[in-house]
Formats: sequence, C-alpha cells, structure tokens
Amino acid sequence: MDGKMKALVKHERAKGAQLQEVDIPKIGDLDVLIKVKATSICGTDLHIYNWDEWSASRVNPPYVFGHEFSGEVVEVGSKVSKVKVGDYVSAETHIVCHQCPQCLTGKFHICENTQIIGVDTNGCFAEYVALPEENMWKNPDTMPTDIASIQEPMGNAVHTVLNGDVAGKNVAIIGCGPIGLMAVGVAKAAGASQVLAFDLNPYRLELAEKMGATTIINSKEVDPVAKAKELTEGHGVDVVCEMSGHPIAMDQGFKMITNGGRVSILSLPVKPVTLDVTNDIVFKGIEVQGIAGRKMFETWQQVSRLLQSNQVDVTPIITHHLPMEEFEKGFQLMNEGKCGKVVLHPNGE
Amino acid sequence: MDGKMKALVKHERAKGAQLQEVDIPKIGDLDVLIKVKATSICGTDLHIYNWDEWSASRVNPPYVFGHEFSGEVVEVGSKVSKVKVGDYVSAETHIVCHQCPQCLTGKFHICENTQIIGVDTNGCFAEYVALPEENMWKNPDTMPTDIASIQEPMGNAVHTVLNGDVAGKNVAIIGCGPIGLMAVGVAKAAGASQVLAFDLNPYRLELAEKMGATTIINSKEVDPVAKAKELTEGHGVDVVCEMSGHPIAMDQGFKMITNGGRVSILSLPVKPVTLDVTNDIVFKGIEVQGIAGRKMFETWQQVSRLLQSNQVDVTPIITHHLPMEEFEKGFQLMNEGKCGKVVLHPNGE
Amino acid sequence: MDGKMKALVKHERAKGAQLQEVDIPKIGDLDVLIKVKATSICGTDLHIYNWDEWSASRVNPPYVFGHEFSGEVVEVGSKVSKVKVGDYVSAETHIVCHQCPQCLTGKFHICENTQIIGVDTNGCFAEYVALPEENMWKNPDTMPTDIASIQEPMGNAVHTVLNGDVAGKNVAIIGCGPIGLMAVGVAKAAGASQVLAFDLNPYRLELAEKMGATTIINSKEVDPVAKAKELTEGHGVDVVCEMSGHPIAMDQGFKMITNGGRVSILSLPVKPVTLDVTNDIVFKGIEVQGIAGRKMFETWQQVSRLLQSNQVDVTPIITHHLPMEEFEKGFQLMNEGKCGKVVLHPNGE
Amino acid sequence: MDGKMKALVKHERAKGAQLQEVDIPKIGDLDVLIKVKATSICGTDLHIYNWDEWSASRVNPPYVFGHEFSGEVVEVGSKVSKVKVGDYVSAETHIVCHQCPQCLTGKFHICENTQIIGVDTNGCFAEYVALPEENMWKNPDTMPTDIASIQEPMGNAVHTVLNGDVAGKNVAIIGCGPIGLMAVGVAKAAGASQVLAFDLNPYRLELAEKMGATTIINSKEVDPVAKAKELTEGHGVDVVCEMSGHPIAMDQGFKMITNGGRVSILSLPVKPVTLDVTNDIVFKGIEVQGIAGRKMFETWQQVSRLLQSNQVDVTPIITHHLPMEEFEKGFQLMNEGKCGKVVLHPNGE
Repeated sequence: MDGKMKALVKHERAKGAQLQEVDIPKIGDLDVLIKVKATSICGTDLHIYNWDEWSASRVNPPYVFGHEFSGEVVEVGSKVSKVKVGDYVSAETHIVCHQCPQCLTGKFHICENTQIIGVDTNGCFAEYVALPEENMWKNPDTMPTDIASIQEPMGNAVHTVLNGDVAGKNVAIIGCGPIGLMAVGVAKAAGASQVLAFDLNPYRLELAEKMGATTIINSKEVDPVAKAKELTEGHGVDVVCEMSGHPIAMDQGFKMITNGGRVSILSLPVKPVTLDVTNDIVFKGIEVQGIAGRKMFETWQQVSRLLQSNQVDVTPIITHHLPMEEFEKGFQLMNEGKCGKVVLHPNGE
Repeated sequence: MDGKMKALVKHERAKGAQLQEVDIPKIGDLDVLIKVKATSICGTDLHIYNWDEWSASRVNPPYVFGHEFSGEVVEVGSKVSKVKVGDYVSAETHIVCHQCPQCLTGKFHICENTQIIGVDTNGCFAEYVALPEENMWKNPDTMPTDIASIQEPMGNAVHTVLNGDVAGKNVAIIGCGPIGLMAVGVAKAAGASQVLAFDLNPYRLELAEKMGATTIINSKEVDPVAKAKELTEGHGVDVVCEMSGHPIAMDQGFKMITNGGRVSILSLPVKPVTLDVTNDIVFKGIEVQGIAGRKMFETWQQVSRLLQSNQVDVTPIITHHLPMEEFEKGFQLMNEGKCGKVVLHPNGE
Repeated sequence: MDGKMKALVKHERAKGAQLQEVDIPKIGDLDVLIKVKATSICGTDLHIYNWDEWSASRVNPPYVFGHEFSGEVVEVGSKVSKVKVGDYVSAETHIVCHQCPQCLTGKFHICENTQIIGVDTNGCFAEYVALPEENMWKNPDTMPTDIASIQEPMGNAVHTVLNGDVAGKNVAIIGCGPIGLMAVGVAKAAGASQVLAFDLNPYRLELAEKMGATTIINSKEVDPVAKAKELTEGHGVDVVCEMSGHPIAMDQGFKMITNGGRVSILSLPVKPVTLDVTNDIVFKGIEVQGIAGRKMFETWQQVSRLLQSNQVDVTPIITHHLPMEEFEKGFQLMNEGKCGKVVLHPNGE
Repeated sequence: MDGKMKALVKHERAKGAQLQEVDIPKIGDLDVLIKVKATSICGTDLHIYNWDEWSASRVNPPYVFGHEFSGEVVEVGSKVSKVKVGDYVSAETHIVCHQCPQCLTGKFHICENTQIIGVDTNGCFAEYVALPEENMWKNPDTMPTDIASIQEPMGNAVHTVLNGDVAGKNVAIIGCGPIGLMAVGVAKAAGASQVLAFDLNPYRLELAEKMGATTIINSKEVDPVAKAKELTEGHGVDVVCEMSGHPIAMDQGFKMITNGGRVSILSLPVKPVTLDVTNDIVFKGIEVQGIAGRKMFETWQQVSRLLQSNQVDVTPIITHHLPMEEFEKGFQLMNEGKCGKVVLHPNGE
C-alpha cells in the first residue's frame, strides 16, 4: 500500500517523541500490513520516551516505537497463508530466529536472538504497522479493540501467575503497575485463595482492590513481610509474583514466601540484587522462575480465553483513552503514576 | 468414654440398615474419639445400603458404615500429640500402611494396603466415631458442619480437576452426581474458560448450571461429542473429568478430547471398558489419569481454602438435611436421583 | 536439479514395490533437495509393502515411499535460510500445519493436520528426496550415515521412555522390535535400575540383552506379569513402555504396573482394546500416555546428544545393510522377524 | 539396652572433639536402637569439629555428633511396627513435625520445624544410636556398610541432579566435594550428554574424572564460563548444580546457564549473594531451585536403586577408612581437602 501515515516517532536521542508524517511501511512476502485500531503504552515505551540509560543503549532513533495494539489486516505478502485481509489481529512482540536451541525445542519466548517490535524494529504507534505473518494472533470479532490491545502485557501477567499452581493458594503480587494489576485478576480467576497486592501508590492499590485483591498492602505504611505472615498463620505465601523491580521489594518477596513456594520474577531490576540464598532459597527449598515474554502462543490462547469467558475483567485497568495526537498527556500520566493503562487511537476510532 | 450411642448399622447381608444402640467405641493410644455433628451419604454408602455385588464382596456386617463427617474431638489417646479435645475436625477416609513403596514415597493416596473407614472399619453414621489421629483434618471454626462434612467427596472433585492445568481451558465434566457437581464448581473457580456439564438427569443438570457450568448437555437429547466439538470450533475439549462410570459416556469422553488433552477418570465402571487406544489415545497424544482418593493432605488444604475463600460455593449441592433417624428417606432420595448431597445429623444439631 | 533417479516405487494397490527410474523431484521456495546416503525400513514401510488394510485405506500408489534417512543437501529453494548446500541432514517425518491449536501452542507433534513423509507425500527410498526446510535436522559430521538414518525411530523410543522419570526406576519394555530395542538402550542410559524386556521372539530378546536389558522375558514361556512382580518384590514396575500393539501384551502391561506408575503407549493396536479401567487405572492411580511422533525438535536434540555422547549405542540394532536394489531381501527379513534395523543405500555408499 | 559405649563427643564450645565412654542411649516407644557399623564424616561435622560461627550459633555441647551411618537394629520400642531387631538400616537425618503445612502436604524435607540428627540431637559417631522408627531406611543385605553409610549425602546429590530432566542434557557440577563428586556420577548415570566438573582442587578434579565427568575444569586455570560456552557451541549448559557455596563460583553458574536452563543450588553460601537478576534469571527465563535435604523417602529409593543396580559406583569417592579412635586424622584430611569421603568404624568392623 502506497501513501503516507501519521506515526509517533522517537526522533532523537533525548527525551520526547514527535508526531510525524511518514511512508506507510512496505511489506515482504511473509509480512502483513495492519491498520491500527488501538495501541497501548507500555512501561518500555515510557523508558524510550524518557530516554533513560537502558533506551540509550538499545534503541536507534529515528524510528516508530510502540508494540501493543489491535487492528485490521489490510494487505498480505505473496507467501502469507494463515492470515487474510480483513482479519482482526494483535501481535506477539518477539520476532524469533527459529535456529537457536531454544527455538528448536519450542521455547520461542526465550530465543537467543529475539528482536522486539517497536524496540529493535518499527512499531505500532502509527496508523499502519507491517509485521511478520507468524507474529499474528487472531482476535474474536466481539473483543473490544482496547482490550485486544492489552493482551500482550496481560500475556506477561498470565505467563507469570500461571507458571505453576494457583488454585487454593495464597498469592502475593508485588508491584501494581498495569501488569501487576492484571496479575491480581488472573490469580483471582485461577482460584487463588488469597491475593495480596503490594505497592506504595494508593491509586494503584485501589485499582488492585477493584481487580479482586483480597488484601491491599501499602508497603510504606505496614511491614509487608509481617503482614503477609499474619495473613497466612505465620507460614508465608505460596506464590510471589515479583513485578516491582525494586531490590527491597524483591527481597521482601523472598522473606514472605513459604517453604517450597514459588517466586516468579517478571520485573527487570536495573542493578544486581543481593539475596540471602542460604536462608531464603536453599533452606526453604523454593523455586525461583525468571519470566520472559509470553509462551508462543500458549500464553496468548490462555489470555484470549480468560478474557472471552469474562474470567478476568480488565476494564478497570484501562483508565485512559486518547487520540494519538495527545500522546504527551499519556506519557505524563504514566510518569505521574496516575493511570492504569493508557490507550491511544491512531485512526480516530 | 463409656456408654451407649445411636448408630446406623449395616446389620445383615441384605438390602437396608438399622438404627441401633451400640457401645461408644474405645480408642487406642494413637486414636481420637469424635462427636459427629454432620455426616453425609456417599454413593458408596448407597451401594452398601442396597447391597449390590461389590458390597457383598467387600463389607462384613454387622458394622457401622459412613465415612463423610464433621465433628468435635471429645477424647484423645495417650500418645496423641497433634489433636486435642475440642478441635473441630473432619477426616481422611483412607487409613494407610506407611510401609509400601507408595507410602514411602509420599503417595499415601495410592497405598497398596489402604483400608477405608466405614467400609473396612466402623464408620461415622453414629453419634461418635473413633479414628486414628493421623487421619484428622482440622476445620476452621467458621465452616458450617454440613460443608465441613462434604470436604471428603469435594476432595475427589478437586483431585480430579486440579490434577493438571485448568485456567483458560475448556473442561468437560461427564456425570453430574454430587462429585461431578463439585467438579463443575472447582473448574469454574480455577479459571476454566468453558465448563461443559453432561448428564442424563435434568434435575442434576440444573444443579450443574447453578454451580457455574457454561453449558449443560443432556446426552439423551443431543450428541454429546458433536456438541462438545461445536462449542470448541471443532477441536474438542482440553480436559475431560469422567465421573459417570458408564462405558458409553466414558468412550464419548475419549472422542471429545482434543489432541494433547487430559482425561482424568475418577469413576469406577463395573465392567472392563473397550477403548480405541490407537485413535483416541496414541494418535491424539493424550494423557489419561486414574484418580484415587485425595492427596494426603495436599488436596484437603486446597479444598479447605477454596471453601473458606468462597472461590467455590457448594451450598446448592447440599439439598437435604435429615436427622439420622430418617436415614431411609435419604437413601430413597439417592436411589431416585432426586437430590444433591444428603446430610444426616446424628446428634440432632 | 534436472535429471532422473532410481527410486523404490509403491507402484500398485497390491503387495510389493518396484525399483523405477523417475524424475528427480523439483523443489519449492521453502524446500531443499537431499542426496540420500542411507535410508532405513520402518514397520510402516512394511505395512505399505505388504499392502494391509491400513495402507489400502491411507496411501495412494504410485508414489515413492520411505521416510527414515540421512543425506546431503544438494539444492535449496530461494527462501531457504537455515539450511545450505552441503549440510548433512536427516528429517522429521511430520509435516505440520502451524495453524491448529496444537501447532499454535508448540505441540507440533500432535498437529491436527499432520502429513507424513513417505505416506502422504513422496519419500526417501530414492537417490534424492525433496522436503520442506523446516523439517530438516542437522547431523554432526562425525555421525555415521546409518545411525543418522535411524534417529527418527529412535526419536519414538526417546519420546516414549523420557516422557517421565526413569532414573532409579524399574522399567518394562513390552515388544522388542527396533523401537523397543532402542527403548531398552535409552532406559538404561537414563539410569533405570532394572530394564525388563518382553517379547515372544528369541532373536529379538537376544538383541534386547545386548542393548542392556537386565532381564529378558519370553512371554510365551513365562507369565510376564508374575515375572515382573517377582523382580520387584511384588509391587510391579514403575514404568511400562508399550511397543507391541498386541491387546494381550498391552493388558499385561496394565497388570504389571505399580500403583502410581506410568504406562506410555507408542504402539498402534489394530482393534479397540478392553481394559479394566477400575482396577488397573483408577484404583492404581496411574498415568497412561499416548505417545505420538517426536517432539519437534526437543526429542531430536535428545536423540542426537544421546548418540553423540555414546550414552546409547545403537549399533547392535542395525543388523543389515543392503544396496537399495536388494530391497526385497530387506522386506523379507522384516516379515520373518530375523533382523533388527535394515538400512538401504540408494547411492551405493 | 543398659551399658556403656564409646562415642565421639563434641565436649566443649571450641575446636575439637573427644572420644568418651557414655551411656548407651535409652529408646522411647517409637524409637529403635542401632549398633553402628559404619559412619561417615560430613562437611557439617567438620564445621562442628572446627567450631565455626555457624556451629557456635546452632549446637549445644556436650553431645554426640555425626549423622551418616549404617548399622543393625538391636532393640525396638514397644510401639514400633515397621522395623525389627536384625534389620540392616541407615537413617534419614531430618526429624520432622508432621504438623506444619509442608509436612501436611507431603513435603517433609522442607518441614518448618526440622530437627537434624547429630546437630540438634545426639548422633551416630558412637557404637550405638537411638532414633525414631520413622526415620529408618532399610538396606539390602548385599550393600557394603560404607556405601550404605554415604547414602544420606548421596541423597543430596540425587535430589539436586534429578530435580529436573538430565538425559541428553549438558550438566555442570560446580564444586567437587564428596556430594559434588556423587552428583557427577548421578548425572552420568541419568544420561547426561556432557558432565562438566568445576573445582579449584586438582585432587578432587581427578576424582571427578573417575566418577565420569566428560570434562574437568580447574576454575583457577581457565575461565569456567568461557570453557562451558566453548563446550556447548556458545549456548551454555542446560543444568547447573551449585555445590561450592562460593559467591563467585555461584555467579559463574548463572553466567554459563543457557536460556531456559535450570540452576539447582544445594550449597549454603555463608553470606548473601549478589546476582544479576535481570540478565541472568529473567531474560534467560531460567529456573532456580533451592535444594534442601532429601525427599522422604522418594530420594532414598532412587539412591538405593542407583547403587544396587550399579548405575552409580561410588567406591572411588570413599578414599579413607578409619577406626573411630582415629577420628582426628579424618578431620585433618578433610581440612586439607585431601580426601573424598572418610568412613569411621565405631565397632571395629
């Protein structure tokens, strides 16, 4: 498809971004072109917008960023066989190599050569985005576009929470950003007996309560480890989902876990973390899991079904809808921590 | 404790039972005596009452039958250390040997030398029951006695449903007797996307709907396999919980399962079953699980927590409360299939 | 590549096959052309050669059959990126759809739309074979061509044996055809405490002993269930790998398994099998697994490494090498059960 | 049994121990008295002997230490039912509470109230030891007493190595003390493709080679991470068993693990360890396991069978046999790192 489109461009190696008119991307034989209906802002996008150390070391402006979206396929490459024009899709963000030992053994989500859409390639903060066919996930027609857009981060939540047993367990969610909030809903839907939500931000804790947390704990105000023990007859929680990235909060997670428990870490602490391996990992006989991305596409299937069946209702988390032109407002809300998920609409729908 | 008590005695090798006055049982050093508050009738008890082939080959009248209950500890043996007078308890029904390879490796629920309370020993259809300390499960004070009593069969449901992943899956419950009904509730609580409930009895299917089934299917009226496929875009369900014991229904379960699915069998068909191993098991690459008893006591912990947290509400299943004297009415209701769970109250509470 | 080649053609709907001169196959954009160095005869090929009921219902002569091989890539399609001319390869036999729920969740080996090379498409009993790039498995240069050729059936053995714990377990292999024999070696290499090999054919039992069976049992001469119990202090074996396809032998497997054990079925009985579900599956609390194909490519990785490290030595199983012209001798040996694996050499190497 | 016996007593809160004559211990109703045939020195005993910070904070002299042994039952308590006089036994070292959530769910090895024989109670460096019946493990008559004695530490090795898949995997054993050496043998027996053994001590690395390590690496002389990558085509190892307790070696383990790999930690580093959680755990999507004790008694069954079947030959590790009187020589050898396992014989056998 020839022509121009509006896109949010990370235009220079500094804070900010620009709405620009750029060429609609060309597609290869195995690619599809999608008209973006809704695109949501991820914490990663905020890092790139704010131009922190990590983004300075990873991304190469100028380029279009953004990776969470839903939209309609408007063009397909000559070899595309599984997707057709008119399909309503979202996309897995990881482009994988199919050649490393992980890919060869079906663990695509930890491909050694992963490229990330909107980080290493042009993304979806735009009217159109071109992507490999194999990254497509088809959405049911009945799913609202904003909900379809946040399936990708919800996949992180689902991958973390459901990477072990949950039903009848006491689960702690540490860190109530959007993914933490979704994790609260997923844990509840999967039969957790108690869901303890921890954060420092009252706004987010209130959202956690709406998502089904049985207890919300402001770790600034109460000792989180003592509280977790109190709520579990002194034994500690069975599962910790670490989504804060703060070394202190992470250490608290290891202190509140019961013997034989599971600590699943999705967060990315910016510095090395000091852990009491002997007392908190070995003697306790616990399992610690690093959680990367989403299982392709097992996690997507779980996400789609949990949403379709209303087992998880994510609408409380989507707090703001904006036309793409007002992106600055979106990033500001996120910097202030005064939002759940912010959804942009590049095509005015 | 000396004295006499009322007990429901399987008094002869024929249909029926008698309410008799018998000695309150004596306890050994490692036993406890419990005053029974509520005791519920199991399908096994009905077999014994009706005196079918199985019971004629297994039980030795006269003896007190019954094995599901809740009550209060009123006396403890001299070596008892984990339970005390006044504790509010239910009990695991399997008395295990601690010496076979299964016991030695922690798989007590499949002990080679299992004895069953109320089948191989005197049971709880009585004012008092004497049981080994190690079979006790402590109940929270807030749990109603009838709900505490049906934790044992609910353990069967939980063991069956949660013996693999459920969240975001399509689950079929074949057979909606009391355990099947509880399985519906457990599957729903554990995040199943769809819960398909199958039975021939409209009364029970109605209860299944109350328990959260997303579709109820009367296998007399519609082709259950075709219906299951229709509801899953032609692929079949991910999990089958077989609780009917009917060879035809069981075979239907194997026909409606998707490739790579799980068939968990709790039922006990009275005759050998003919299965299409090649097409329904091998080519499909499925897993078939025999489910025996409850994991001791992992399943009990799950049951207790699912009930306490209200993740599963079993009240719709408890359809009848009777004083123990009216036991005949209870067995009649069960023979007619016009009830969920029937609870007897031997001490008039 | 233009030209003619020799190929073993299933030429008519009757017993037999013909060596013919046919066109070297053309490759598509995503295919590769391989010069076949070694190709081994599978039981499936024998069914096709003998023209039994199954093959009459499945295959469409005339076509080239055969699916186990090793060879050298001599030409690659325009879009091929992971394989290059000169690579030494074997191939996964299942061509999968990438669209069904199983493919989408990484369970390619149970794809709903599987096509089998040499059954549904032209195969490798030929000087050259054309196959999709994605089915290729690269072999180490040091692996002999005959061993590389039998990796595919060894994958069945590995998938069956290693689909659960083996180290320190007592394992029964029922049926000592080539895959059963490999399973003996794999079980031994994976730390099985005892490996009991069952068959009716003394020739094969002798090979089982060479592969490391700790006891060989001729089920014609001794009661296999009694023998298995005797060797396990009366408890039964921990793992049964069913590779015979005989209903009686299969039933014996279910009788000799210990409570909580695993029965993994790779064989394809031609008729429905009658099982004592209550006593042999439910009360025992066992797990029954249908084993289809090989995990793509996790199983291939395991196979390749077990062979390279000499943890499994399959040379005793490869009993016959023949030029492709002598194919009739190969099929005759197989019909007589007087061989392990028969390897054909289409290019005289 | 009345009378006196020789015992190795940790007599004061300082370095050393004394051979003393003490009373033969009395047994309770559920205990057994064992005549010790062989007792081996553990690293923990060395800590107690040397009187380091940990032992000063944990043990209460005077008492008899030691916990690894084999011997013959010579007396049983009145309620003992599973063990009889004449039985040849070893013992699990953990005395558990049967009341905490871990015990109630069958995870006895991580009991919240574990007491350790020879640390919290009198141990087996003596002619006789009294222990609870439930801790007994029966040995086959054919097992030599020294080998039976080291089953307990071999249980640590087995629990660590077999807590995930090993067959066809590349496994790194970091730290080649006696348990590390056994881990080498277990990994090899369980079908590991490569077993890389790391240590700084050439004496121990030589033993590792005898136990079946495919490569021995002196981390003082070569970069262990680079070497591990080189041996795995740059991808890293699949499994790391951390048995060194050194923060640097532990960190190296996290650097050499491949994406999706498993790090099982048995060692007890004396200080908190700093880990690059983001790059080495989360992005890699690995699993980290704390390994405590031995599964009761699943691990013991595995150990016993691996030894009986000669899948693992531990004789190279037992480097020294001494009469109990020469205990000082044993502790000295251990302090010098010039031994594998040292076995003491209190009854001169």
